This record gives sequence, structure tokens and C-alpha cells, in this order.
Amino acid sequence: MSSSTEQNANFPASEQVELSGHIIDSLILPKVLDEIVSLGGEFEFQDVQIGHRRRDASRVTLTVRAASNEALEEILVAIGQHGAMPLDIQDARLEPADMDGAFPEGFYCTTNEVTEVRVDGGWIPVDRAEMDCGLVVDDSKKFARCIPMCDVAQGELVVIGRQGTRVHPVERDRSGHDAFSFMNSTVSSEKPKGVTVRDIAQSMHRTRDESGKILIVAGPAVVHTGSRNHFSWLIENGYVNVLFAGNALAAHDIEQSFFDTSLGISMTHGKAAEEGHEHHLRSINRIRRLGGIPQAVESGHLKSGIMYECVRKEIPYLLAGSIRDDGPLPDVVTDIVEAQRKMRELCEGVTFCLMIATTLHSIATGNLLPARVKVVCVDINPATVTKLADRGTYQTIGVVTDVEPFLRALVQDLAGLKK
Amino acid sequence: MSSSTEQNANFPASEQVELSGHIIDSLILPKVLDEIVSLGGEFEFQDVQIGHRRRDASRVTLTVRAASNEALEEILVAIGQHGAMPLDIQDARLEPADMDGAFPEGFYCTTNEVTEVRVDGGWIPVDRAEMDCGLVVDDSKKFARCIPMCDVAQGELVVIGRQGTRVHPVERDRSGHDAFSFMNSTVSSEKPKGVTVRDIAQSMHRTRDESGKILIVAGPAVVHTGSRNHFSWLIENGYVNVLFAGNALAAHDIEQSFFDTSLGISMTHGKAAEEGHEHHLRSINRIRRLGGIPQAVESGHLKSGIMYECVRKEIPYLLAGSIRDDGPLPDVVTDIVEAQRKMRELCEGVTFCLMIATTLHSIATGNLLPARVKVVCVDINPATVTKLADRGTYQTIGVVTDVEPFLRALVQDLAGLKK
Amino acid sequence: MSSSTEQNANFPASEQVELSGHIIDSLILPKVLDEIVSLGGEFEFQDVQIGHRRRDASRVTLTVRAASNEALEEILVAIGQHGAMPLDIQDARLEPADMDGAFPEGFYCTTNEVTEVRVDGGWIPVDRAEMDCGLVVDDSKKFARCIPMCDVAQGELVVIGRQGTRVHPVERDRSGHDAFSFMNSTVSSEKPKGVTVRDIAQSMHRTRDESGKILIVAGPAVVHTGSRNHFSWLIENGYVNVLFAGNALAAHDIEQSFFDTSLGISMTHGKAAEEGHEHHLRSINRIRRLGGIPQAVESGHLKSGIMYECVRKEIPYLLAGSIRDDGPLPDVVTDIVEAQRKMRELCEGVTFCLMIATTLHSIATGNLLPARVKVVCVDINPATVTKLADRGTYQTIGVVTDVEPFLRALVQDLAGLKK
Amino acid sequence: MSSSTEQNANFPASEQVELSGHIIDSLILPKVLDEIVSLGGEFEFQDVQIGHRRRDASRVTLTVRAASNEALEEILVAIGQHGAMPLDIQDARLEPADMDGAFPEGFYCTTNEVTEVRVDGGWIPVDRAEMDCGLVVDDSKKFARCIPMCDVAQGELVVIGRQGTRVHPVERDRSGHDAFSFMNSTVSSEKPKGVTVRDIAQSMHRTRDESGKILIVAGPAVVHTGSRNHFSWLIENGYVNVLFAGNALAAHDIEQSFFDTSLGISMTHGKAAEEGHEHHLRSINRIRRLGGIPQAVESGHLKSGIMYECVRKEIPYLLAGSIRDDGPLPDVVTDIVEAQRKMRELCEGVTFCLMIATTLHSIATGNLLPARVKVVCVDINPATVTKLADRGTYQTIGVVTDVEPFLRALVQDLAGLKK
Repeated sequence: MSSSTEQNANFPASEQVELSGHIIDSLILPKVLDEIVSLGGEFEFQDVQIGHRRRDASRVTLTVRAASNEALEEILVAIGQHGAMPLDIQDARLEPADMDGAFPEGFYCTTNEVTEVRVDGGWIPVDRAEMDCGLVVDDSKKFARCIPMCDVAQGELVVIGRQGTRVHPVERDRSGHDAFSFMNSTVSSEKPKGVTVRDIAQSMHRTRDESGKILIVAGPAVVHTGSRNHFSWLIENGYVNVLFAGNALAAHDIEQSFFDTSLGISMTHGKAAEEGHEHHLRSINRIRRLGGIPQAVESGHLKSGIMYECVRKEIPYLLAGSIRDDGPLPDVVTDIVEAQRKMRELCEGVTFCLMIATTLHSIATGNLLPARVKVVCVDINPATVTKLADRGTYQTIGVVTDVEPFLRALVQDLAGLKK
Repeated sequence: MSSSTEQNANFPASEQVELSGHIIDSLILPKVLDEIVSLGGEFEFQDVQIGHRRRDASRVTLTVRAASNEALEEILVAIGQHGAMPLDIQDARLEPADMDGAFPEGFYCTTNEVTEVRVDGGWIPVDRAEMDCGLVVDDSKKFARCIPMCDVAQGELVVIGRQGTRVHPVERDRSGHDAFSFMNSTVSSEKPKGVTVRDIAQSMHRTRDESGKILIVAGPAVVHTGSRNHFSWLIENGYVNVLFAGNALAAHDIEQSFFDTSLGISMTHGKAAEEGHEHHLRSINRIRRLGGIPQAVESGHLKSGIMYECVRKEIPYLLAGSIRDDGPLPDVVTDIVEAQRKMRELCEGVTFCLMIATTLHSIATGNLLPARVKVVCVDINPATVTKLADRGTYQTIGVVTDVEPFLRALVQDLAGLKK
Repeated sequence: MSSSTEQNANFPASEQVELSGHIIDSLILPKVLDEIVSLGGEFEFQDVQIGHRRRDASRVTLTVRAASNEALEEILVAIGQHGAMPLDIQDARLEPADMDGAFPEGFYCTTNEVTEVRVDGGWIPVDRAEMDCGLVVDDSKKFARCIPMCDVAQGELVVIGRQGTRVHPVERDRSGHDAFSFMNSTVSSEKPKGVTVRDIAQSMHRTRDESGKILIVAGPAVVHTGSRNHFSWLIENGYVNVLFAGNALAAHDIEQSFFDTSLGISMTHGKAAEEGHEHHLRSINRIRRLGGIPQAVESGHLKSGIMYECVRKEIPYLLAGSIRDDGPLPDVVTDIVEAQRKMRELCEGVTFCLMIATTLHSIATGNLLPARVKVVCVDINPATVTKLADRGTYQTIGVVTDVEPFLRALVQDLAGLKK
Repeated sequence: MSSSTEQNANFPASEQVELSGHIIDSLILPKVLDEIVSLGGEFEFQDVQIGHRRRDASRVTLTVRAASNEALEEILVAIGQHGAMPLDIQDARLEPADMDGAFPEGFYCTTNEVTEVRVDGGWIPVDRAEMDCGLVVDDSKKFARCIPMCDVAQGELVVIGRQGTRVHPVERDRSGHDAFSFMNSTVSSEKPKGVTVRDIAQSMHRTRDESGKILIVAGPAVVHTGSRNHFSWLIENGYVNVLFAGNALAAHDIEQSFFDTSLGISMTHGKAAEEGHEHHLRSINRIRRLGGIPQAVESGHLKSGIMYECVRKEIPYLLAGSIRDDGPLPDVVTDIVEAQRKMRELCEGVTFCLMIATTLHSIATGNLLPARVKVVCVDINPATVTKLADRGTYQTIGVVTDVEPFLRALVQDLAGLKK
């Protein structure tokens, strides 16, 4: 439990804080330590009193150090949300509202946890816990309450900043069943997408330049959504070292080469072609007649598309069978144990894996990859990404977005990185 | 029931077809007429025997005309799927399979409907109905069966083309409850997206050039996903004549201007900012202190973003209140009846409406618009688009895609059209 | 184009209506005919002028007959929505509003289509089309407008009933791309569920009693959601004649028998069991050691559950392999072409198919079934049902609901029917 | 850092374990402490060396105590997954496979993390990390590898149990952007539902018996799905103390009372009623004519349903306006700031909140409730539950299920508890 003093030169700002309650049982201590470190600070344990049984309270005193007073303040604010309080506490700063319906700048923003305010050296409980409000202390300085922005009146005493406030987070109830605790946050479709795509592009670019091995797992939506050219660009430019897919991706890719449709929808004008639903069958049949995809390329029948590029660039691919398959193409490995064996072999040395719009193949591949492989899973359906994580592929980054524009943006970003 | 003969010059190819069964009750006749016309052909009724009661069969004879034999063939194939048979019927063409495991080119693709093949002048029933197979007739020419591609053996007699085949579509059961008929196809996320975006861009461009009025209804995901610049471009370039939104879009737009975050997520590097969840509250509070959005622009506090552009370009906007609102911004119309009235006024003259990532405001707007207004609804969640249609806004085009890349592509397409 | 007069005795009420415009191209005529028949009426064509080219208008006169004046009125109202107008037209009924903010009972409800009102023998256009409003005619009787309920003032002249009103539905634009027409309504989770389940129960019961053949296709969620007992009840009571599933359903079913967990979650108290994620692997391994599921039953190792009941009741089952499979169980058919062949055999004679919570196996089975087989697809995810229909299994009834309560209710309803 | 020795009488089994690496930065230490406590054990720190900077490794030695050797083993297995290793380490147990294609019982199940096996006193790295496999050591005892169940050959040396194995979990990369870390697990629709409903029923029952206050927030799907009677039962039996809803729930509830339809769908037979889409408008209009819902009850016009029961039982309700509303009903609070104020008042003293099928009202209510209130959110759409948690209502229990069967099961369970 040591902390070399030489370090302190880099962390001149410090504060002693205390944390008490069921801080282990409620994951509060871990969160606090994690916040300190992730905000660039460091901590030193001063005193640790751990409750023996689950219901016993614990009490920990830490010294928090940071590179500047500002950084320290940021840490204290963050860990204050989890109930960590400076030992040296001051009264809350109060300022009268200068107008109706709005707080002074710098007002304290409430959470929905039990909260107290320190006024004249004593702690006043806050009357009602409601998130996203301000805190008002009455003139007698004996009562405090949450008040929404639109209800504050000029002259009311508003708490400014976090000094002199403390919260008592609700502890998780772990008795009996966990029906009341299985909730967690999740993948969201509401993130700045440009940033995410740029990060993925950089990872792929770095992987290629460092001679890593990129595995792409792709579903037929790559073809249906009109993204075939983007995908072909990735192959041509060295961003695909192995391809896992099924009969459908290859069949619709070839359908587009032969008929300019995918599942019968014209890729040029988006309309359904008459009899178009038969195009993929006729495409599979033609490849079966020719003996396989490489033969179709060599004989000059297949002249464009994803599978064509794979053959031309000698990218190994594995088309794994499923009971939904029409045909299937002669290249499909129809025995699933055999397919798994080949996938396992091709996974050797993979360092980056991009999964696009396929639940079946993504989960199957996730099952085979070591945890150290970075996996990005792109799907318009949040459930696919969630399922992948639920089955233990924890290293997955989920991106809930649409295939075509994702690949379009990825190609644009990669093209920019090449220069 | 006339058909002027002068037309026939343009439609030299013709064939008489017959349709029988519960063709009205099953929507079969309508579908056939619709197919003929939509494939560029025309029809003339020869004889119409309509069953009186629901259970009575009907029988209709039509002459189908088309511009060429090829076009006629296409029509006959399409309407043959619904059971329309040429009066002048020929035997099916049979060809021996030239190899195992694949059909000859041009093979007949089966549906899952009851099917018959005409051999030696008589109709043979097909043993089992399965879609996406071929049809094989046995040597005795007395039996026919569906066979999957992989099971055909060299020498077996395969039906080629559709000549001499007929199907009997299952009729809808309409007795009693309709639990067995409420199913329909739906919006799909698997369409060529580039084509769809291009169509929308052309519609918007045409609307602007013809001095139509474009209404945009937008949710806060426009800001969260990092699409604010795309949206601002639309305003600057005249593609937005009215904006409907709520407190959240404006608040997060202003949050980005003030703090470079949206719901606390940095728009530059995608990370959560410490205390960032308070940024939108502080932004709303600041605007309340200034008196409103126009005042914030005029006083130089608000210098960028969607609301800034609206003020600068004098685009009328309506921010409608909801019970989820924090604050709200002073510009929000908090009484919903009053908000509806203002929306109604601003809807006057709208000719094109683009709804982006908001269920509440989209449905509210859909309720106000005349059917003649073209409405495009973009959402990553198919349910939003579906709900819009279910409530009677039938003219809606649903696009299931991601906001940021959609707007990015739309701006690129519009920028291309401008030149 | 005849209509036997003897029928007219049953349909004493009649009215001549006219329909004009692009009624074929816009599917309007079909819809009108369909509505008449489905509302229990009948029609007789009087005059049919069909436009030759897509852009030419058509004009059809029909006699509509119904069993009573009330039924006739209902039909006229319904087809009036599509623009079918009685030849014998009367003025709209006007009544002054008797209070502010509400219409008189029986007020005309507007659509969002172009609408006209007949006043003093002439047609007045309605100023603005908005759905779900009332219609008010001004004192001069020269102007009419849509007005929302809350805005009507006492004394204003409100249109009552549909008499003397007509709408002009927007026609579908079919030129060029169909981006603006691919929208349709869809499966909905918002239907009275009790009724739907009751219908399904009746179908299954009837199928069993008529010695039909019921195929169940089921995913592992049947086990995860705690529905195994419901399913076993179905087997025991003769409602399952064939079972299609994958390795996962069988593995988790056996896991529950061996460990009382499913994917490691306790089926008794809902908590995750420590090491529970290994239970399915250990279960598969144990069955592999025993040689297969029937051997495990015969040797007394497997004593409960779905697979146990299948073996005991000699219900044929097909476990089809997929590349996601762990193990797999020795009973799994790992070659997918072989699995399809066996599924095809077992589909022989199936008359009712219930698909529960599996996209892969449902679509694979849908591909094999004739159209005449009634298919019910139950999934909590609307996308699964939609995909099934998109691939051509049009006869499917989609039920968007949760597996466990669905099966619970189904078993309750079936148990009730048995008595 | 003390641990009273008297406790040890209850925890006779103990083991010293060591944990090293970036155990703070990677949340590994927290997880380990949490696992120990949650599995019923206790821990005592022996030595804690915390790295100062993020990149420095830490090293912690703990004594783990448990109530039995079996319980201790369970804990050691659990924390071993996170890299916690007993200080006193033994070689792995090896056993030759007794057959092809299956492991001996008790085989070690692999994770996808970097793994080592202890053989002859030294650690051998495992060649490839793949989850859900077994571990085989070659005859030279110098190499170990993951092997899938189906590939093991008789005689190969298989690792049994976890003794003598260790894993090195991948550490989270926290440099730069967090695109590679925003993924978490989520609400799932695949849980044993009966258990969850039973837990909720018990909570509601306890709340009622302890004179707590139950708030129900409900959307119109309660009516559409045919659940009105279940809901009325809850009111009648004292399980509803406050109701929050919108215009739609009340309007469709009243529509069902007046017309036996909801959004025009018959609640008796599930079919669309002709003109049924107008029923809710006519219902709203009629209530407007009567002055409000209480007046409609008192005058005998409204005789059944949710709103009727609320009036009869004097349950306070708040109908909050939204811009989607038709009418609205006179009882709706149309100003959203006013509605929030009233909701805030009615939230006073609430101890349990059940939210059913409404995103808007659920999030609005979640914003107002203190964190200590237990919140259960039921929706068929996982996104609603997720959104609630994303906005800070962390105490929410999400249940992804269908409204009608959920309420049916809840009522059944509550009826059972009453006895």
C-alpha cells in the first residue's frame, strides 16, 4: 500500500476523500478507483476498513492526486457522484437567483439520488430527489429542495457548484433473485457516427500496414443495399485478407454480375425486375454448371463483384452452408463441422475482424476468435450486436448503422488515409 | 368495355387469356390487371362472368396487348403466376438434364402453389409444391415433381420455360376472423440505398427549383449522430423552408455550439465528457437567461448550428413541447393544442416533407398533412415508419437507415445536382 | 357480365355508383370490388370504360347490392373513401354546432385526400385536407374547410354523415423508380392478442381432430424463456406431429434436464448459475458419450423435457446443423443438403405449421412448404416475420409476441377446447 | 484492513490468491471482490501494491474465505476467470480421453482469453484461444491446445477441472477514443419470464400491503392488445394508486366502452370494423360534449374500462398532452410544463412504478422519480427500456415482453398471492 513520493512531483494537487457504506457490495469503490485512474489521477489508500459480511458497512480513506487543481476538481466531481466526499468539507456556495425561470450560471445539477447540502456547517437533506434540477435553500437555511429551471423565482438561494453537496447512491439489492438488477446500458444508434467510422478505418489501415490479418464476415445485405463496389474496393486495396460468408452473399453477388439485380431488385434503379426473384436461382444453377466460382472466373463468365475479386486477388474465402440455402453453390462447405474446421484454420493469425450484417456467421466466427482480436460488428439491428456480446464475445465493438452508407464512409476514410 | 382499334398499332402483340376461380374475392383479377398495365401492356375484357356470392367462382377472358412479343411474354409470365392462362395452350417444353446436380439453362422455377404441367395435351399435377425448385417429368410422362437443383440426375426430363405450366394460387380465407390474413410485406432495410437517396435528392431539388415548400421534421439524433453540419448545409442551400422539432433537437444543437457535446458525448472524439450530461441543462438555462434563441443569435452568444442557421436565414421553425422536456427553451410552444395550431399554419403550401428520426413529431405532422404531399420518413427503427403508415399517412416512403450517413449522402447528391 | 335476378331477393337494397380516374393503375377498382364483397354485398358491372394507356382515365358504373339498407350504407361509406360516388347524389347534411369545441354527433370525419362537399346542388372544394377533422361550411355556403374538434365554434355549419361528400384519392406515381411506392403496412404488435391465440388454438385443435399433421419449428428461446413445460404439454396432448429444431434447442432442453439451467440461467429463480455457461457444453458432451438422445432416454439419463417427450412419444424430429453449433449433439444432421432432404420428407402431409422464435429454421422450413399449408410464425422480433413474408411465404400469419406467455396462453386455450 | 478472527468460525475454508496486472485500470480487482462477496464468501487483503500510473502493474494478495470447501472452490473458479490464482498452485489434472469425439466428464471448458496450463511444475501456453473447447496436452507435455469436442481422439490427454490452469484477461484499451469500449450487455427477451413476472407480482403485492404507493404509467397498447380487463382488475384490487397516461390510452379505452373497438379493431373478434378508424374521434367528441370523463361516468354514459374504474375508485390520474393528440379529451393537461408540475406532485411518495408500453410517458416519469423508487418497464421493444436507462433511470428493470400476456400473467400471480 505504498506510493513512491517521487511521483508526487507530477501530481501536485491532492485531496483526502472518504467513502463509506456498502462500497464493495455495490461496486462503488471499484467505480471510484476506476474514475480516478481514468481521469488521469492516482490514489493512495490511507485506511481501509472492509465489512466482513455483505451487510456490514466498509469505510475507506484515500488520497487522490492529480496533475493540476483543475484536474483534481474534475476527479472530485466525478467521484462525488458515487458518494466519495473530501474529508475537508466546506459549506455549499449559495447565490440568489437573478431572474425568474433560470438559474445563475454554474448552478448545481441534481441527480435522482438522496442528496444533502452543507449550510452553516451542517448537512441539510434535500426534500425531493429529482434529476436535472437545481437546488434551492430556503431563507431559514433549514430546508433544501430540487426545483426545475422553469420554477425558480428571483431571489431564491441557488446552490452553485458541487462544493458542500453530497449524495448517497442507492445500493444494489442482491438478495434473492436478480430480476431487479439485470439491466445494463447498451449499444446505441445515437452516437457520432463519423468518429466511429474514422476509428475503424484507422484500425484497419494500421492492421494492413503492420501486416496484420483482416477477416471480413459478411451477409447478403452487402449486396442488397448496393454496397458491392465499396466491398470490392476494400479487397482491391488490401483491406481483406480472409472472407467468411454464406451461399447467399455469393449467390446475390453473382446474380448482380449476371443480371444486375439482387433478390430480383435492380441495383441500378431500385425497382423489382419481373421474374427477378428467379435470378439468384439461375445464377446458382449456372455456377453449378460451370463447376464453381473459380472456374466461372477463369472461363470468363464471371467478370465482376466480390467473389470475382476474391478469386482474382487470391483471397481465401469460406462459404459455409446453412439450411436456408438454395442450390447451393458448389463452393459452399455443406457440412457444418467441416466448415467450422476450415473457419478455425483461416482464423489463425487474424488480428482484426469486421462483421457486417450477418447474425449467423458473426456469432459462429465470434465463437472461434481469441479475445485479443479486435472485432467490429456492424448491423442495422441492435439485437445482432447484443447477441454477440451475450454469447461471450466481449471484445466486440457494436456499430448500429446501415450497411451501404457505412461501407461508403469507410472507403472514403480509408482512401483518405492512403494518401 | 371498348378498346379503340387504332391503339392496336402500338400494341401489335396480343394473346387471349383466361382467369377463373375466386378471382375477385382473392384480389387476383385486380393484381392481374395491375400487372398488365404496370408492365406497359393494355387489356380488353372479352367476357366477364362474376360470381354473385363470395363463394361463387368467376371467369374472365381478356385480350392482353403489348408493344412486342418479348413484352407480351413478360406480361404472360407475370400474370401466369396469378393463374391467368393463355386460351391457346401448348405442351410444356421438356429437355433432358445434361448433367447431375444442375438444370439446363432456362429451367422453369417453381412456386409453392399447386401446379400442373401440360404433357401430350393433358395436364399432369405436380406431386409436391415447393418454391425455388425445378420441375421434372418422369419417363412415362404421367408424373411430375418439384426437385431441388442438387438432386437432379442427368437424363431426367426438365421443364424449360413457362409454356404449358399453370398454377392455382391459394385463395384467401375470409370467413370469420382475419387472424389468418393480416400479414403484409413491409418496409425493408435491405434495398439499394444509393438509389433511394438519389431519388429523394432529386425530389428535393425539383421541389426547391419549382418553388415548392420543403418541411423538415427532425429529432435530436440529427445532432447526436454528428449530422449537424449536413443539416446546416441543407438550410444554407435552400432545401429547408420550415423546420418542426422539439426542445431536445434545439437544446442539443445549442449544447454542441456551447460545449462541443451532444448529451454529453464529445462530437469531436466520441468520448463522454465528464459532467457532460449537464451540458444540455446548462445550455437551456443560458438561453433562458438570454430570453430565447433569436436573442442568443443576435447577442452573439450562439454562433453556429441548426437553430443559428434558421434564425440567420429566417426559416420559420416550430419547437413543440413534450412532457419529456428539460427546461424547456423559451422558444418551445408548451401548449400542445397551440403547437398543433401553429404547425397547421406552417403546413400551408408544403409540397415535400422529410421526417428524420422522430416518432412523435413525425406522426403529429403526418396527421396534419394532405395526402398529396410527398413524405419521406427516415429512421433506423422500422417501427417508426410502420407506425406512420398504420395511422393513415399512406403516402409515406419509409427509408430504414442511419441518420448521419443518410444526410451525408443526401448532401453529396444535392451538391452534385446543383452543378 | 350477368347477375341472376333470383339473387336479388337476398340483396334487396341497391345503389348505382360510379368510379372514374386512373382506377386500374391506382388499384382503386380492385379495392372497391374487394370491399363490396368483403362487406357481404355484391356488384354488377353496368358500364366499363377502361383507359388504354396508363395515363388514360377509366370510368366504371356498378350496381351495388346489399342485404339491407344499413349494410348498403356501410358499403357506400367504405367505397366512398376510394372515390366511388352514388350516381344519385344529394346535398350534404349541414347542422349548426350546438357548442364550442365539439361537433354534433354523427359529424363527417375527414381524410387527408382532396375532398368536396355538395351544397345547394354544387360541389364546393374543401380548403385544406387534414385527416381526423370535421368539415365546416361557411355561411355563404361557398367555402368549406377542415376544422379540428377543439376549434369549432357554436353556430358553425358542420357536415353530418357522408352524404353529399366525395374524395379524390391520390394516384400512385409509377413512373421511373418506385422509391415512392414501396411502402406497405405491416405486422403489428398492437392487436388484441387473446383473439389471435384463440384462433391459433382452434386451428391446431381442428387439425389434430381431423388427423392433419402439425409441424412445430422451434428455437432455443422456447427453453430460455421457461416454456419447456408448455411445449411438453403440446407433445403429450398430440399437438406436435413433427419437430424441426437445431442443436441449440435440444442442447438447452437437455441442459435444463441435467442442470436446471438454460444458457447458465437458473430456470427456477432466474439467476445466473456460477459456471453455468459451461452447462450446455457439459450436456452436449454427456450425450455424445452416451451415443445420442434416444440412448440417453433409454439408459435413463434423460428423464424430462422436449427431446425426452419426443423420444417417448415417437415424434419424428430433425435437428439441423448450423455453423454456430457447439458440439454438436450426435443427433444433429450436420450436412445441410442432407438436412434439407430429411426436412423435405418430413414435410410430406403437413397441414399446419407453427414456427416459434427461430429465424433460420423458420425460413428454411418456409422454403419447403406448399402454399396451402397454414403457417403461424411467432416471434418477439417483427423482423423475423417480415423476412419470412419477403421471401415468398405469403401464407404466413405473423404474431409479434413473447414466447413464454404465448405458449402459456395457447396451452390454456387448447386445454379448454379439449373439454 | 482488518478482519476479525471470530468471523472465521463461519468461514472455515480459505485460500490465498494473488492478482496482478492492470487490475484497477481493467476493473478486474473490483470484479474479483464483487464475485467473492456475491458468492457468499469474504476476503481479507494481505498485501496491496497499487501501480501509480495507469500503465503500471498492480499486485494484490488476498485471503478468500468461504463456508465450505465446495463454496470456496466455486469462488476460486469464478475469480480464476478474472486471473486470480491461488498462491499454492498444483499441476493440472490430465486424463486420457476414453473415446473419440467426447471429453471425459469434468473436462476444463476454455475461454477465449490467453490461457496457460501447469504441467510438471511449469506453465505451458495454450496454442490457440477459443471459447467452449477442451484443453489437450500433447504426449511430450510441452504443448497444449484448445480442441473442439468433436475433434478429440481417444487417448489424448485432456485437462480435467480448473486446477493448474490460468488465464490472462485482455485489458481494456482506454487510450484515445473509446470507440473500442462502448459495448455492454443489455436487456434480453430471452429470460425465464414466469420468474420475472412472479418477482414483479411479489413486489407489487408487498408494496400494497405495506401501504406503499404504486404508480402505473401506461400507453394505449394496453387497450389495443386487449388487456383492459387485466388493468381494471389491478385498479379494483388496489394495485394502482396513481395513473399516468396520455390522451390515446383514455380515448381508446373509452372507444372500447362505446364501440367495442380500439383504433377501429374489434376487441371481440380482432377484425377491423368498417369506419372503425373514426371511433376514437367520435368517442373523444362525445366526452367533449359531456364535459369530461368524470361527467361521462356520473351521467351514466361511460360504464366500463380503465378510466371508468379510476373515476369510480377515485384513483388520481394525469393525462398529459402531446402534439399527436386528436381532440384532445377535456381531461388532458395540454400545457406540458403544467403537466410536469402535476406529475411531480403525484409522484410524491411513490415507492413502486410500473411502466407499460409507452416511451414518451415512461421517460418523462423516469425523469421525475427519485433513484430509490423501484421501476419496472415493460415493452415489447427493447429500445424503450434501453432509452430509459441511457437517460439515467438506472434503477429500471427492463422486461421485454408482450403487454397482454404480461398483464394476464401478472393478474394471475397477484390473484394467487391474495389467497
